Amino acid sequence: METMTDDRIEFDEPSQAILRDARKLLRRKERKAAGEFLVEGRQAVREALRAPGVVKWLFVQWSAARDNKDLVDLARAEGVPVYAVSEQNLGTLCDTVTPQGLVAVARNVDVALGEVLHPERERVVPDAEKKHRRRDVGLVVICAQIRDPGNAGTVIRCADAMGADAVILSSDSVDVYNPKTVRSTVGSLFHLPIVIDVEVDDAIAACREAGMQVFATDADAGTDLTDLDAELERPTAWVMGNEAWGLPLEHLTLADKTVAVPIYGHAESLNLAAAAAICLYASASAQRAHEH
Amino acid sequence: METMTDDRIEFDEPSQAILRDARKLLRRKERKAAGEFLVEGRQAVREALRAPGVVKWLFVQWSAARDNKDLVDLARAEGVPVYAVSEQNLGTLCDTVTPQGLVAVARNVDVALGEVLHPERERVVPDAEKKHRRRDVGLVVICAQIRDPGNAGTVIRCADAMGADAVILSSDSVDVYNPKTVRSTVGSLFHLPIVIDVEVDDAIAACREAGMQVFATDADAGTDLTDLDAELERPTAWVMGNEAWGLPLEHLTLADKTVAVPIYGHAESLNLAAAAAICLYASASAQRAHEH
Repeated sequence: METMTDDRIEFDEPSQAILRDARKLLRRKERKAAGEFLVEGRQAVREALRAPGVVKWLFVQWSAARDNKDLVDLARAEGVPVYAVSEQNLGTLCDTVTPQGLVAVARNVDVALGEVLHPERERVVPDAEKKHRRRDVGLVVICAQIRDPGNAGTVIRCADAMGADAVILSSDSVDVYNPKTVRSTVGSLFHLPIVIDVEVDDAIAACREAGMQVFATDADAGTDLTDLDAELERPTAWVMGNEAWGLPLEHLTLADKTVAVPIYGHAESLNLAAAAAICLYASASAQRAHEH
Repeated sequence: METMTDDRIEFDEPSQAILRDARKLLRRKERKAAGEFLVEGRQAVREALRAPGVVKWLFVQWSAARDNKDLVDLARAEGVPVYAVSEQNLGTLCDTVTPQGLVAVARNVDVALGEVLHPERERVVPDAEKKHRRRDVGLVVICAQIRDPGNAGTVIRCADAMGADAVILSSDSVDVYNPKTVRSTVGSLFHLPIVIDVEVDDAIAACREAGMQVFATDADAGTDLTDLDAELERPTAWVMGNEAWGLPLEHLTLADKTVAVPIYGHAESLNLAAAAAICLYASASAQRAHEH
């Protein structure tokens, strides 16, 4: 390996084998086989680096090294190998045209359903700092057959913002490690437990066993979100359906209640991520108003 | 022009000049010059056709003609020329790979600020059916420097869903007629008055003259959305800032109040469209609870 120097920062260049292994992760099949994925851009890379043990390699574009010196230092402090690459080589690791000069290879962060929701076990969180402290009330979102990478990422970001305890993606949902999804989470993927590849009925059963009520969103539901009052303060798992067809009857019937976000205008429906944002905000605010 | 027949549906084929004129609209400069834009897909095309005088031409892919017979009939009833084209030709009119066999050329639908917000004039709506009846309370969203086409479209869709009276996009925002924006509105672009190319301070002044209070969203605001109570019931214009840097101080100071959507978790911020959805839901619900 050669070593390059930019004033005070020294870098190794990656071997062709390392570049090839990283590049493979643009494909879902290879991501699955490796249990690794790519993280693009400053904010997402920073959040990945803050989650101990998650980042395997950090690639920094030579010309962007100084601007990212803080993250290079953070990576090195965590013992993460940092490689300098050309803009062209960085481009081959990216799904976007503007990767902001940084790409990391990260180890999968998803956790098992039992780990986050088992009622008799202390909640295990993937963050050594234990910043995801368990509240008395719980808030979980279950995405059934979510198919758009941007929607999935935005739901995870909203769930994080609203202090949710976990996001669960059903087995027929989009790959959470898709670069578009990772990008849309803007680092939130590394902030709260994510469960993937589970059946919707198993996810609902686990949430209920963990003491949560289960609300399923449905545009045709008789109950509007605004009709809910004290119920919103209780631990809740929200089940969100597919972008186009919503939730099938078999999942709607598993819920304690089906709830519609009211449509006051002429739109047929809300964007899935917008509906999730509204439901999670309503629950999180009610739960916290109740705490005070 | 040749005429083709599919069982009971007869079609003209478009001339090369018509195809060329439509294709040009993929470019912003040409859209601006023509005052026209492209609308892809069944739902958006249907909503465009329901807005009288908006659709100029409808192109239907020959193989998708039967599945779209209802919209072909609707177009013809409105006197809109319908042209059958090959899948290949339809593809040249589209920004997406899956245009669902339908593309329309539509006339710009934006209206002047004075038309929707002048306090002494009866509200003019771009829909002959007058379905946008004026409520006593008003709800408007002003997007300052919104740059992502998908975000802009999703905000318009949310505003429509929440029964807002108008969406105003500042002059340095993304082109509302960008195919990605149009697609993200899922037809809502044709449901409520859209104002474009205005300065944020002019938009704020107009909303205030129309009797609205002005709330500007700001992550650092001292007032949380959950702190607002009876104030939410009043006519309100929400000012949303840019995806990356929010609202500049000069615009924040123009507002009656700066408001933060509370962040309970570890995300640095919410996605712009999610924040807009939450604010508009909070206002719309409070305004309606007040009406009852």
